[in-house]
Amino acid sequence: MAGDAEATRRRLLDAAAAEFAAYGIAGARVDRIAAAARSNKAQIYHYFGSKDALFDAVFHDLVVRTVREVPIDPLDLPGYAARLFDGYEDHPEVQRLATWYRLERAETESPLEIVVASNRAKVDAISAAQRSGAVPSHFAADDLLALVLTIASMWTSMTPEYNALVSRHTRAHRRQVVIDAVHALLT
Amino acid sequence: MAGDAEATRRRLLDAAAAEFAAYGIAGARVDRIAAAARSNKAQIYHYFGSKDALFDAVFHDLVVRTVREVPIDPLDLPGYAARLFDGYEDHPEVQRLATWYRLERAETESPLEIVVASNRAKVDAISAAQRSGAVPSHFAADDLLALVLTIASMWTSMTPEYNALVSRHTRAHRRQVVIDAVHALLT
Repeated sequence: MAGDAEATRRRLLDAAAAEFAAYGIAGARVDRIAAAARSNKAQIYHYFGSKDALFDAVFHDLVVRTVREVPIDPLDLPGYAARLFDGYEDHPEVQRLATWYRLERAETESPLEIVVASNRAKVDAISAAQRSGAVPSHFAADDLLALVLTIASMWTSMTPEYNALVSRHTRAHRRQVVIDAVHALLT
Repeated sequence: MAGDAEATRRRLLDAAAAEFAAYGIAGARVDRIAAAARSNKAQIYHYFGSKDALFDAVFHDLVVRTVREVPIDPLDLPGYAARLFDGYEDHPEVQRLATWYRLERAETESPLEIVVASNRAKVDAISAAQRSGAVPSHFAADDLLALVLTIASMWTSMTPEYNALVSRHTRAHRRQVVIDAVHALLT
């Protein structure tokens, strides 16, 4: 029965991730999530307590996976940015959920400690590489991390009004722009 | 009476801009907008037709003002990025509305022609500056515009988990990072 409960919880998290990515927290409907997971609203409230808490569970689940999947390599920041870019392209729902979180949830919640710690470790790694002379230091390590994260996700968050201009852009082209831009920051 | 109608419409647009910036489209409540504008729901539906159409009117109003306020200077892209940054800092609701638009509205609507035309003119201006030799051309003009727009808005869209690390950042510091980063892309 523990296996069944775990499987139900997993189906609910997956269905909720899709619903929240599409509609955000205010726009999401618990009955649609229940239907997509072949479950019911009572079960959702039993497992998670509320729609907000369900969103937090989805987001935490996703963040833990993302933090693990793309480790930083301070000696190859262009390559790190390219791998982040690949993650965003392969999983566009990640960036949408992170944006909904920032708009709808972040102001009422404390920053997620696991992500703060991960960012701190990244800044420390860049900083150490700068002290060793392997990475130039005309940007402070924390600013450099901000620039790399921003450039890696730039295409995922571009406006439709920009995208309308550049419909010929291939994924390979966008990836190369990310690599070249991070490279330019380091030279 | 035409003056009264115009004043009411203006009050509704301002109240709606604040409500949509805070809660997005799905989360916004028409009765709160009506109360804040000292109006009523019937008047909102009379002037705008629907909540979605009210959002579009707010967004269009804002976009027209923004496009006018920060003209591009292709010979000083770092300065252009800094002026965009100033606009985002002074009017944080602009970036929030643009993000809600991208998440909640853009997929069902055509790109706003006025913004597409403005972006096209910017790409053309950068392209002409590159042909004249005044701007280096290791990035294509459209990619360079994407990078400048992304970097100008980077601090406005940073995650709370990043911001928790860098609470000492001043506005002047963040502005200088924007200028230095765009400068680095051009050298």
